[in-house]
Amino acid sequence: MITVIRPGTKEEQIDSLIHWFREQGLDVHISKGEVHTVLGIIGDTAKVDTDLLEGLEMVEMVQRVSDPFKKANRKFHPEDSVIDCGGVKIGGGHFAIMAGPCSVESEEQITLVANEVKKAGATILRGGAFKPRTSPYDFQGLKAEGIELLLEAKKQTGMPIITEIMNANHLPLFEKVDVIQVGARNMQNFELLKELGRTNKPVLLKRGLANSLKELLMSAEYIMAGGNENIMLCERGIRTFETYTRNTLDLSAVPVLKELTHLPVIIDPSHATGKASLVPSMAVAAVAAGADGLMIEVHNDPKKALCDGAQSLTPAQFEKLAKRVEKIRTALED
Amino acid sequence: MITVIRPGTKEEQIDSLIHWFREQGLDVHISKGEVHTVLGIIGDTAKVDTDLLEGLEMVEMVQRVSDPFKKANRKFHPEDSVIDCGGVKIGGGHFAIMAGPCSVESEEQITLVANEVKKAGATILRGGAFKPRTSPYDFQGLKAEGIELLLEAKKQTGMPIITEIMNANHLPLFEKVDVIQVGARNMQNFELLKELGRTNKPVLLKRGLANSLKELLMSAEYIMAGGNENIMLCERGIRTFETYTRNTLDLSAVPVLKELTHLPVIIDPSHATGKASLVPSMAVAAVAAGADGLMIEVHNDPKKALCDGAQSLTPAQFEKLAKRVEKIRTALED
Amino acid sequence: MITVIRPGTKEEQIDSLIHWFREQGLDVHISKGEVHTVLGIIGDTAKVDTDLLEGLEMVEMVQRVSDPFKKANRKFHPEDSVIDCGGVKIGGGHFAIMAGPCSVESEEQITLVANEVKKAGATILRGGAFKPRTSPYDFQGLKAEGIELLLEAKKQTGMPIITEIMNANHLPLFEKVDVIQVGARNMQNFELLKELGRTNKPVLLKRGLANSLKELLMSAEYIMAGGNENIMLCERGIRTFETYTRNTLDLSAVPVLKELTHLPVIIDPSHATGKASLVPSMAVAAVAAGADGLMIEVHNDPKKALCDGAQSLTPAQFEKLAKRVEKIRTALED
Amino acid sequence: MITVIRPGTKEEQIDSLIHWFREQGLDVHISKGEVHTVLGIIGDTAKVDTDLLEGLEMVEMVQRVSDPFKKANRKFHPEDSVIDCGGVKIGGGHFAIMAGPCSVESEEQITLVANEVKKAGATILRGGAFKPRTSPYDFQGLKAEGIELLLEAKKQTGMPIITEIMNANHLPLFEKVDVIQVGARNMQNFELLKELGRTNKPVLLKRGLANSLKELLMSAEYIMAGGNENIMLCERGIRTFETYTRNTLDLSAVPVLKELTHLPVIIDPSHATGKASLVPSMAVAAVAAGADGLMIEVHNDPKKALCDGAQSLTPAQFEKLAKRVEKIRTALED
Repeated sequence: MITVIRPGTKEEQIDSLIHWFREQGLDVHISKGEVHTVLGIIGDTAKVDTDLLEGLEMVEMVQRVSDPFKKANRKFHPEDSVIDCGGVKIGGGHFAIMAGPCSVESEEQITLVANEVKKAGATILRGGAFKPRTSPYDFQGLKAEGIELLLEAKKQTGMPIITEIMNANHLPLFEKVDVIQVGARNMQNFELLKELGRTNKPVLLKRGLANSLKELLMSAEYIMAGGNENIMLCERGIRTFETYTRNTLDLSAVPVLKELTHLPVIIDPSHATGKASLVPSMAVAAVAAGADGLMIEVHNDPKKALCDGAQSLTPAQFEKLAKRVEKIRTALED
Repeated sequence: MITVIRPGTKEEQIDSLIHWFREQGLDVHISKGEVHTVLGIIGDTAKVDTDLLEGLEMVEMVQRVSDPFKKANRKFHPEDSVIDCGGVKIGGGHFAIMAGPCSVESEEQITLVANEVKKAGATILRGGAFKPRTSPYDFQGLKAEGIELLLEAKKQTGMPIITEIMNANHLPLFEKVDVIQVGARNMQNFELLKELGRTNKPVLLKRGLANSLKELLMSAEYIMAGGNENIMLCERGIRTFETYTRNTLDLSAVPVLKELTHLPVIIDPSHATGKASLVPSMAVAAVAAGADGLMIEVHNDPKKALCDGAQSLTPAQFEKLAKRVEKIRTALED
Repeated sequence: MITVIRPGTKEEQIDSLIHWFREQGLDVHISKGEVHTVLGIIGDTAKVDTDLLEGLEMVEMVQRVSDPFKKANRKFHPEDSVIDCGGVKIGGGHFAIMAGPCSVESEEQITLVANEVKKAGATILRGGAFKPRTSPYDFQGLKAEGIELLLEAKKQTGMPIITEIMNANHLPLFEKVDVIQVGARNMQNFELLKELGRTNKPVLLKRGLANSLKELLMSAEYIMAGGNENIMLCERGIRTFETYTRNTLDLSAVPVLKELTHLPVIIDPSHATGKASLVPSMAVAAVAAGADGLMIEVHNDPKKALCDGAQSLTPAQFEKLAKRVEKIRTALED
Repeated sequence: MITVIRPGTKEEQIDSLIHWFREQGLDVHISKGEVHTVLGIIGDTAKVDTDLLEGLEMVEMVQRVSDPFKKANRKFHPEDSVIDCGGVKIGGGHFAIMAGPCSVESEEQITLVANEVKKAGATILRGGAFKPRTSPYDFQGLKAEGIELLLEAKKQTGMPIITEIMNANHLPLFEKVDVIQVGARNMQNFELLKELGRTNKPVLLKRGLANSLKELLMSAEYIMAGGNENIMLCERGIRTFETYTRNTLDLSAVPVLKELTHLPVIIDPSHATGKASLVPSMAVAAVAAGADGLMIEVHNDPKKALCDGAQSLTPAQFEKLAKRVEKIRTALED
């Protein structure tokens, strides 16, 4: 960690800061330039609070050299992690598509979609039971009943299921759920992350709308620090000034995260773009970029459920997409 | 609400959509242009899910005309709300400064700071007991003990206290706390908001780093829909590309929120800028813009607690700031 | 175009506004709701200035239904445009890779790189002669001499060349250049765009760092309105809060622009990511997403020119990338 | 400047980099940590191209310690600069309001507005002659004739005038203009900046929509490096995800720029917010924050020119605003 001292700071103040670093078991290299004095802090600096340090009058700038995430860091764990999601492996060359409706609506709907996406090549069933909605007046999901319906679809199709948790108190309801999803709005709900760290369930952690990739890794670290290392990371679009798409898919997240961490990386083009017409090209692009998996919204019959169409593909569109994904994967393997 | 139909859509599809709107008790005005058909939806459209609507193949664009927040909306509640914070009023002409340290550290520290900020003009004591931290390895606050220390400082100084909640399960610990703060990272932790809606405690709701002002109002609506209308809104900086300041203080939040809602608006220049040197000018600017209150970080003795200086003012700096605030308020009243 | 009237506006004011629209040859449909009156404006609304309209006290909101770009609009020109770049076609199924160094440095360097990238599959040579630099103290390019060296490389290899223009007064120097590039910082240098509209040179127009895709199309419209329809659009990353990559590559630009316009879409992963290690995966992702071309930085010998390595690939890395691109293209064609 | 070497880099490569720095007259301090080697580069590092350096395989991170702007830097020029704008001083305690219409429309209009704003307290007249418009089909200003009309208004009122330049070739038309404005879209039109550096006209340089404050200072440096040090900086809103306001006014620009530079800082709340109702509160906030001047749009008779009302105040609203500004200034002086 580098700490740049503001010009004009008294020697005794600098000494006091150096002393403080050393008290914490850190080594300090001092480099005096014409204008600036720069301290190089060596040792386990993950515990140093850079926000606090930057607040000091005498400090002009603080810059980490080592990343503050440890368990998620590829430097200390060079091999890809492989996560077992109820029998389906993801990471380290194992690829999977999670597909299903935005919300679980009925047994008929979820079972129908499950069968359709399974036939087309999906290996994990997604479906929302607890739904985070911007407005308190919007449909909030079938909740516990939704999970029951997902479990019924799992029973009938054999597909492992993934669904979102919004409240640590609901954990008992997730006992038979294969993968727990943490939504973008909860990426820094640290209390929830800590609770998930005490379980051993696979967790799909979605990047927050305004969170950097390093912050995503710090949130993964929260869960891993608690003992649960079954984490998958998911890019689902960040918030920018562009309004044509609902969010901006930051696909460079794939190669960046592959450099920084050993955890699998999943791309969700449905939420990222918010428009069904953009999903297929972004899905194949994600696969070409090296993603370990996709999460795709698929609905059953748009004629029956008139308004169940946001950003979702029909089963036929999904099947076509899955074939293109397969082609890309084959091409890249050769 | 306006719904623009994609050119080339069949008449029967449009009819089916119009029928669907009418089934929900809404009235539909049809306007056919050379290229586009536009539907004007009239009635209580707050319950219509625009995301779902936009997902329909036949829909080119959806635009709300009425805002989906009701209880927080100034249109239906033209008078300013005044919130009673343990005896200190905020809103409708009542102004207050909340001040205190980032984290509660010890009885000595919190009582000392409380006395200092009270003397200088603050009327509510702030202090973090549960601390949301990006890294699991950073100090997470004194938790329950921190609240005890705040209550002790309240006893000694008579100041009402505000502190942040991170987990609805902790609510019993907040029984004697005067104002509960919801941090930026939890602005869309809807489960927490719903729980707070079941209390009658004043809540200070901070804007999320990537949330629009209308989303902030929707989150206030979550609490109000539950029955608790004692809400104050707080702007504390949004995330942008600029890196010199920790966040970008969006001070236009003050006049915008004053137009849209009757709820009081508080500005937190300490978190917004992340630099003590920028706090005073942003604080007086906020007051000039019409804010109902300020939240300012003040620490006691930076020499003793070497690293407790992030974005915090010394008591002497705070006193000077409070005087400038008073001058501005007097000047604007004349 | 939809114009929503603020509640409480007097009838005579609304009448005056309707009159004003009709004077401009537009038709107005009036729709009165419980709270809001909504005007649907029909006709050629491209000439209506929405900024000015929104400034009116009586107007609550203005929303375009038709896009204000005409010549670039796929609605009026459904077939893909094919641009002839000195004999190399781009668009409508024709794909090309533009490759070469960030800056032209010497005849030896540019000719060497030209030969290398041609061998690997590039068909257009890129190289900066006039360089836009944030700092006045940074190297600004070889300027006219740089163009001479590019022309020499063109002579030796037969490759058409593309290079950036920064000043309309330099146009005479670009007479033998095959494609003129407009950089991101000049995307809204309207005076330059107008001048380029008076030529018939192919233009590669780069998206500005904070410009929406519709603004990019409006800038293309500036050139096309002048008579030059040989435009290619280039996404090269937008500015967001993420700092790990230099910019954030908005790859959804490919399918979005394909929907909105008939112009070819090129992706520049080198500038978008700013890191050579991220270029290959973003390049293949772009091709999978349907891009019509790539622009890639390639430098010759990083050992000789120590600091000529920013975001550039070596010829060997480029060759490998070109092969992966070819595989993806073949896979998608099947 | 700090350069962090990637772990695993060979000693000879590091030596070669150190050698390269020394060849450029820079001194290098070497600091070896457990994992990282950090080079501290000492001397005039403004000429080192950090983009190129970061592109090197062996370099993990580059961080400037000194700012690359020199002439604009307060460190080397601690006293506030005072700019003489045709007799009106700005900076170093001198405050001015620039006011006038968005576009010059007619002699009657500009003279009327000039008289009104002068009476209310404005000391510089603004008005657009060359107008940058997103669409080629929008009104582009009266151009040369507009400047003639401004000069006529200047003659009649004695007010110095400011108007925007979009093309260096138009400079002869600006001979009698008192202050030349560079718009946000041209902040990095380096060719234009260089030309302005060769004049001695006061320049008002507006911050680009996606440009950091340090980039704004680098653009000022472009002009100053050419010899023209009569620069004023203007914050007019940046582009963020928030859509309620046209842009987001980053008012912290005032104290930040005051720390970094000696140049005067002007705030333009009209363009920043895009809504007349928000202008007054943001204007007084800017003054409270310490701005050296304001730029405010004022139109004459909104009834006559129906659509000339975007973000503009009426003369009566402007007069009221000017009085509030005066009160704030008096309060802060005491």
